[in-house]
Amino acid sequence: MTQLSVIAIDAMGGDKGAEVIVPAVSGMLLQEPGLSVMLVGAEQQLTALLAEQGSLDRDRIEVVPATQVVAMDEPPADAMRKKKDSSMRVALDLVRSGRADACVSAGNTGALMATARYVLKTLPGIDRPAIISAIPAKGGHTHMLDLGANAECSARQLMQFAIMGTVVAADIHDLERPRVGLLNIGTEEIKGNETIRLAGQMLTGSDLNYIGFVEGYDIMSGRVDVVVTDGFTGNVSLKTMEGLARMLFETAREESRASWFRRAGALAAAPIFRALGRRLDPRRYNGASLVGLNGIVIKSHGGADAVAFQNAVRTALVEAQKGVPTQIGELLEKQAILEQAN
Amino acid sequence: MTQLSVIAIDAMGGDKGAEVIVPAVSGMLLQEPGLSVMLVGAEQQLTALLAEQGSLDRDRIEVVPATQVVAMDEPPADAMRKKKDSSMRVALDLVRSGRADACVSAGNTGALMATARYVLKTLPGIDRPAIISAIPAKGGHTHMLDLGANAECSARQLMQFAIMGTVVAADIHDLERPRVGLLNIGTEEIKGNETIRLAGQMLTGSDLNYIGFVEGYDIMSGRVDVVVTDGFTGNVSLKTMEGLARMLFETAREESRASWFRRAGALAAAPIFRALGRRLDPRRYNGASLVGLNGIVIKSHGGADAVAFQNAVRTALVEAQKGVPTQIGELLEKQAILEQAN
Repeated sequence: MTQLSVIAIDAMGGDKGAEVIVPAVSGMLLQEPGLSVMLVGAEQQLTALLAEQGSLDRDRIEVVPATQVVAMDEPPADAMRKKKDSSMRVALDLVRSGRADACVSAGNTGALMATARYVLKTLPGIDRPAIISAIPAKGGHTHMLDLGANAECSARQLMQFAIMGTVVAADIHDLERPRVGLLNIGTEEIKGNETIRLAGQMLTGSDLNYIGFVEGYDIMSGRVDVVVTDGFTGNVSLKTMEGLARMLFETAREESRASWFRRAGALAAAPIFRALGRRLDPRRYNGASLVGLNGIVIKSHGGADAVAFQNAVRTALVEAQKGVPTQIGELLEKQAILEQAN
Repeated sequence: MTQLSVIAIDAMGGDKGAEVIVPAVSGMLLQEPGLSVMLVGAEQQLTALLAEQGSLDRDRIEVVPATQVVAMDEPPADAMRKKKDSSMRVALDLVRSGRADACVSAGNTGALMATARYVLKTLPGIDRPAIISAIPAKGGHTHMLDLGANAECSARQLMQFAIMGTVVAADIHDLERPRVGLLNIGTEEIKGNETIRLAGQMLTGSDLNYIGFVEGYDIMSGRVDVVVTDGFTGNVSLKTMEGLARMLFETAREESRASWFRRAGALAAAPIFRALGRRLDPRRYNGASLVGLNGIVIKSHGGADAVAFQNAVRTALVEAQKGVPTQIGELLEKQAILEQAN
């Protein structure tokens, strides 16, 4: 018999809420025999949507009622104070009580981060949680963190990010010793600011597979598996990629329409453009992890469609099966012992 | 009669030095009747290369001897101390003495920045110079600064960058009131760190066309003409673009070779790929300005070919014709008066 992992789903979060999430999750139950879900939200709506999904293994679906929904633009403090029965909060409570092994939400990122910290607390040895996601790179993926939770970071925090990134990259991509790089504006030791240089020294003395400073183009070069940076730089870099990809696809579309000849060319080259599109498809990379907490929390993009949301649930499933928070705790402890020995 | 602008060229800088630079400059003299050049470097080599260029208006070319060359990997401090007769240093001296209106170098960036600061000094009211360049954006270009000269910046410096960026964008692209955005990780007032928020307040109170916080994808969205950020974030963001563009073109090439059918498709779509390539061609964007100095200094990429180097010289020519440093000085003074009045 397969060991079941229970994933709590904030079924009301995201731009389209349950209408997208219920069919997405129902589809996944057929593909993943090890998955069991708790759908959290408006009971009647969820039950009605489930009834529309055809034959389902109802033993692996539980509807957990929650009467409130956190709005996408609601200030995190308001969400925490006024929405104690929100689908987001109840899903996080299910992780804390141990009834669920992980949770997934497509809701408001700021509210999810604040509520998750409050409900689950950070792991011992972690100052603040970070956001990590896979990024397309030559020959595969890179994991980058922090993507925006911490606008300013100490060297100690960057060291913690490196540990968390190592665990996530190893678990999600089955890597033995993920190569860790520290994002900087040059590869010489004197480059960057004091925080970066100090973090570099700490990483050099650590047990991680640290390869040194890396630059912006290394995020996608395939030279490194984990890119460590502060949340300001990580967020700007990620959004720079989004902006460039968008501009290129728009330009390609315009150029393809410039003449009959071009239109025919674009048609002939459609498989190539599709392959490029797949390479960058944000749906494939959907599902950022909030790492550093006593529990697994996955953030799906608010505008995620069914395919994208399923990828977020898949990330939750892998992290639950591998026990990411426990592994992070172990690696932190190993590092602390190493530091004491020095 | 055309007013001549004299550009001093570090003819020995860059990966290939005079072999690329002399033919590039010779070609430009034919296109630009307002250009006069001082080629600085090994006299014999330069004279010999000029003799190979066919008919030239020798009245607009002067060879200025310099016996040393700054190596591409030489530490800036060494270059300044030991290479007082380098082609880079002599070219900068020509700007200081007023014999040249601007200079262009494809040499070592760190050495150029350090030597330029020492020789030319910063403008009154500027704490430190910055590096600015045009970046491809939807419908045109964006100018972004700082691209790596200052890993850490104060709010006051970001304000100075906004003023310098406004002048450069207005002059290079003939814009009346360039839209200025401050790069942040969200557009709400509470986002980012204290420095950014303070800079945002200063910009709101200024006379510039400040549109508020912008995010990574706005660099290319066409929403803004000048993107202001610290040198760490700017450098990472620029190199992220380079990395993504490189990965996409490599992927397109691989995908195009995957089958006979794909190869035919790629051939048919060649004009579209060429148009995309032109849009991102780093040669078109070659020529970053070191702004904030008492003089015009343009940095060409070390690996620039003739076309790319010519674009750097063209930037120098436009900045010389418009008098960028004088304009920056005027705008700084206007801002200082405005601040005193408040």
